[in-house]
Amino acid sequence: MPTISSRGHQMPASPIRKLTPFADQAKKDGKKIYHLNIGQPDIKTPAGMLQAIRDIDFDVWAYTPSEGTSTYRNKLVEYYNKLAYNITANQILVTNGGSEAISIAMQACLNPGDEIIIPEPFYANYNGFACPADVVIRPIMSHIEDGFALPSIAAFEKVINDKTKAIVICNPNNPTGYLYSREELEALKALCLKYDLYLFADEAYREFCYDGKEFISPMHLEGLENHVVIFDTVSKRYSACGARLGCLITKNAELYQVALKFAQARLSPPAVAQIAATAAVDTPQSYFDEVLEEYTERRDVLVAGLNALPGVFCPNPGGAFYVVARFPIDNSDKFCQWMLESFEYENETVMMAPAAGFYSSSDAGKNEVRLAYVLHTDELKKALVCLEKALAAYPGRTTTSA
Amino acid sequence: MPTISSRGHQMPASPIRKLTPFADQAKKDGKKIYHLNIGQPDIKTPAGMLQAIRDIDFDVWAYTPSEGTSTYRNKLVEYYNKLAYNITANQILVTNGGSEAISIAMQACLNPGDEIIIPEPFYANYNGFACPADVVIRPIMSHIEDGFALPSIAAFEKVINDKTKAIVICNPNNPTGYLYSREELEALKALCLKYDLYLFADEAYREFCYDGKEFISPMHLEGLENHVVIFDTVSKRYSACGARLGCLITKNAELYQVALKFAQARLSPPAVAQIAATAAVDTPQSYFDEVLEEYTERRDVLVAGLNALPGVFCPNPGGAFYVVARFPIDNSDKFCQWMLESFEYENETVMMAPAAGFYSSSDAGKNEVRLAYVLHTDELKKALVCLEKALAAYPGRTTTSA
Repeated sequence: MPTISSRGHQMPASPIRKLTPFADQAKKDGKKIYHLNIGQPDIKTPAGMLQAIRDIDFDVWAYTPSEGTSTYRNKLVEYYNKLAYNITANQILVTNGGSEAISIAMQACLNPGDEIIIPEPFYANYNGFACPADVVIRPIMSHIEDGFALPSIAAFEKVINDKTKAIVICNPNNPTGYLYSREELEALKALCLKYDLYLFADEAYREFCYDGKEFISPMHLEGLENHVVIFDTVSKRYSACGARLGCLITKNAELYQVALKFAQARLSPPAVAQIAATAAVDTPQSYFDEVLEEYTERRDVLVAGLNALPGVFCPNPGGAFYVVARFPIDNSDKFCQWMLESFEYENETVMMAPAAGFYSSSDAGKNEVRLAYVLHTDELKKALVCLEKALAAYPGRTTTSA
Repeated sequence: MPTISSRGHQMPASPIRKLTPFADQAKKDGKKIYHLNIGQPDIKTPAGMLQAIRDIDFDVWAYTPSEGTSTYRNKLVEYYNKLAYNITANQILVTNGGSEAISIAMQACLNPGDEIIIPEPFYANYNGFACPADVVIRPIMSHIEDGFALPSIAAFEKVINDKTKAIVICNPNNPTGYLYSREELEALKALCLKYDLYLFADEAYREFCYDGKEFISPMHLEGLENHVVIFDTVSKRYSACGARLGCLITKNAELYQVALKFAQARLSPPAVAQIAATAAVDTPQSYFDEVLEEYTERRDVLVAGLNALPGVFCPNPGGAFYVVARFPIDNSDKFCQWMLESFEYENETVMMAPAAGFYSSSDAGKNEVRLAYVLHTDELKKALVCLEKALAAYPGRTTTSA
């Protein structure tokens, strides 16, 4: 029998999926599960975007250009330039989800063995893109105590070496919900210029910034044009995860041309999704206002509810729809599995993502859990009751959450 | 300014796209171009498939499972088992186009530096998937004189070494249209078993087999189950290139699980395309009969027309919708560019793909051209007249096509 490749063996399994068999069993046992484990919003996709799908009028479902249709890219320019990104259509490469934008950037910018620095905890699938590209992720620790703010520049400089080629930020952050400040981004700019590094910014959650806080993109930083690569997606903005439509944005013309070669090899991004996403750019502001209000309410309910539980600590995030909370438990892998396998309160339980899967450093995040507030507040409240009972009953409970 | 990676520099540009600027200029000059250069069929997508897009009834455009929906995979089982593939839904991994299936298989099966053997000329984008995977393509020559039949097994054995991990066939073949016989596949089976190699089969053109010839898949070969990986796509079968929906099929359970990890990293294939492709499986046979009749007629017109031109030789292919023809010219790169830049007959010209781009061996295919018969026969006939005039006028014409 032919063998599997080493990278195939090394390819990380998704940490979020490890619990799936236990969830399936719990469902079979008739338990209701509150799914706070994944980033699939329950928010409706904008009506105009769905209508554009129903209105397709082509006879031949043809390839689009590898970089995306000019219609869609021109429409995206409208969207981004309202945000003062000051870009042109030929700086946008349309991709199969945000995922492909990340893969292409890693392949195009880094040689095998090169390093990227990512504040941890970080979106676990970065590992899944780094592995095939043979790129080494150097994590630097962010801390729950300060809400997972950007680590100090000194911490970055400590790991920068000849192999370092890029820094990755996810802003607002998955899994922590942290929203980077202008000062933090300016500090990253200085660092990237000093060491000639790329700054990759995953802005999948750009639309979700709370409390009137300003969203700052590296695209807003003058003098960093050749260093910045933005990863974006329609998945969360329009609750259209199944569209599989993202893009890579860069003002670095040489990098764009190289990225385009990777895009040409796979021929085309999806055609119907581009039609729908073109329409989506005209989604009325009221849609986003309502969504933001809904998420703000959910966050407030969840964060307050968690902090009211004995021994639980949860920072109040400025964006996205995740929190990472610290629980008074021995091990969140065990706890999350136990909640599915061995616990129920009124025949209900909660599914969450153990935070260890979002850390590269071993032993980090062992008493932390990521919760996605993708359910209505009445459901969130019931989930919180369930969680309170679970923490009280859990055999691995610790006296403090320190 | 940060640097581009070596693989970014090495990434091949698409050979088909090299001529695009000249075609754009020709269009600006008001020339009509017969596009025989690309595999974008003009055939209509099945009505039922398009209707399924218009009938979408979800409110949230959500992720599907990474391996594809069970509804779609079960429907695919129906399709494949009519072809006697004898597979189950958990042997199908739904992908972003056939392209992603190829990428995943290369990553999952081959280590950097490992080799795959591909009869040349071959689909040029295999280079674009091999490059990021750091996989080495070892071409072995197939010959226009015998219609690009499978090279001898001795030719394969000559290049097999410790690094060889897989053989890739495209059947029916792009660019040659060659349809492999049962004997050829049996010979490949013996070879793969002898040297413990994977057999990757790209079957994008499975539906297009002419003259009543039988289509044989490695899936039909007993005892090769753990070696075979099929790449498929809805692009050509349903003229749905823009759906970006393919799949990887393997009965090798270990490989499937590893491939699934690559699929999980990018979360999900496109949702609407899966709904449409589920409906497409019920496309009436009359659709395929009509398409096959149309393509047979086109092939007959093109092949006869080409062979009637002085000094031109074109084998009669058994499948797909391409031919590779030999022209009495010095250099097909120059000739194809000249046809766009410097030639017109009644203000028309023909765009074709120089065959050199489909060969890895340097200097191979220099007087060969790939033509895709993706236009109606009346257009093909006009293109042939245009080509005849061009060959007569071309300054680099040679006396023979040998």
